[in-house]
Amino acid sequence: MYIDIQFVPLPPSPEILSNKTLVVIDVLRATSVIVHALSRGAAEVVPVTTVEEATRLFKTFPPGSTLLGGERGSRKIQGFDFGNSPKEYVAERVKGKRLILTTTNGTKAFRSVAAAEGVLVGSFLNGTATAERSLQLGRDILIFPSGDEGSFSLEDVVCGGMLIDLISKKSHDPIGLTDASWSARFLYQRFEGNLLEALRLSTHGKALDALGLGEDVLYCARTDVTNLVPAFRDGVIRVS
Amino acid sequence: MYIDIQFVPLPPSPEILSNKTLVVIDVLRATSVIVHALSRGAAEVVPVTTVEEATRLFKTFPPGSTLLGGERGSRKIQGFDFGNSPKEYVAERVKGKRLILTTTNGTKAFRSVAAAEGVLVGSFLNGTATAERSLQLGRDILIFPSGDEGSFSLEDVVCGGMLIDLISKKSHDPIGLTDASWSARFLYQRFEGNLLEALRLSTHGKALDALGLGEDVLYCARTDVTNLVPAFRDGVIRVS
Repeated sequence: MYIDIQFVPLPPSPEILSNKTLVVIDVLRATSVIVHALSRGAAEVVPVTTVEEATRLFKTFPPGSTLLGGERGSRKIQGFDFGNSPKEYVAERVKGKRLILTTTNGTKAFRSVAAAEGVLVGSFLNGTATAERSLQLGRDILIFPSGDEGSFSLEDVVCGGMLIDLISKKSHDPIGLTDASWSARFLYQRFEGNLLEALRLSTHGKALDALGLGEDVLYCARTDVTNLVPAFRDGVIRVS
Repeated sequence: MYIDIQFVPLPPSPEILSNKTLVVIDVLRATSVIVHALSRGAAEVVPVTTVEEATRLFKTFPPGSTLLGGERGSRKIQGFDFGNSPKEYVAERVKGKRLILTTTNGTKAFRSVAAAEGVLVGSFLNGTATAERSLQLGRDILIFPSGDEGSFSLEDVVCGGMLIDLISKKSHDPIGLTDASWSARFLYQRFEGNLLEALRLSTHGKALDALGLGEDVLYCARTDVTNLVPAFRDGVIRVS
């Protein structure tokens, strides 16, 4: 088994996606929000790339069944039910509901890897469970950090490095690592024990802190608060 | 002053190159060979992307003035004077000569950044001198690892991280680092004191070892053996 990690969120070619388990990561905050909302009982999450697509899709579902969430410029979108802070997604509001989500980086990433056979949703919140599921699936793994507006993002790669470190330690067979996978693993090891330091050092973490959203950064740095491993299939994310 | 490092060797856009100092790095082995050959008295190095371009250009220069060097599949090209091992480029053969060089990754990188105002040639061999020159030039810096056939290469990024670490420490003013620059710096710090470990762990380093070229890996891991800082301008690399 091989693990690669793609440092820049360019859409991979069909050959690269073929016969692989993909793990999409957007620690700040899309995949953390998805994992959190599903853990609070949301029925499913539909990631879409534009605000227009979100509102158009919303109208196709029965009234009361569906909620709108997401951000632009890290802020809640006008008319939406939720922004992109995990803490907004409380059980009383999301239980049993469909959530349509559009964010700057994370929801785009799902579109980029939609052709893969298995796409998991990773974050620190469900890190160990995601590593174990990826390993069980038995295919080569490609970790896909969502990045920050097309650029490399430290927090996503450190989270990818945690998965690589866990999978390498848990596997009975040797795991092949690329130069990028080794690097992500070393970056994780640099911050192991203080992941919050990595998140606060990152460009995106600093921007959220400056906007008064430091509580989100704190929440998204927590590890293994749930065993849920959401999977993305046919455009929809559900607990798998 | 800002330092960024581009982890994947895609040609940067003209805006990204504008008003920046670029540092091209191909530790294994193109930029190490260029630095070494110039330190042994070669007059200039002309990096070209194809074997055909190299042989065509060679014929335009007076007999005896020019030598051909480079590799494909890490091996010397038929009919060329040198392969891509620094040790081949001895003073007795290269002194006062023009060298036309074509390699798989490094010489392509120069073409990708040719539009930048200042392009320096970095390696471990001239690391401190390259960091000092980059700082003196006063412009924002973009480090451009040549990668390994389009992919991220550990050894080039660790070398880039060394430059970032040195520049950050030597500057009187604070240096802005991107998430990628921080990551490269952390990777360098992981291997500081044993750079050879990084080179031997890298995909390219392992491939060279397997081809019996481990001596080159050893040579290219040496730091600060020269103060030369070659610069690439109008298609030609000379000591600057």
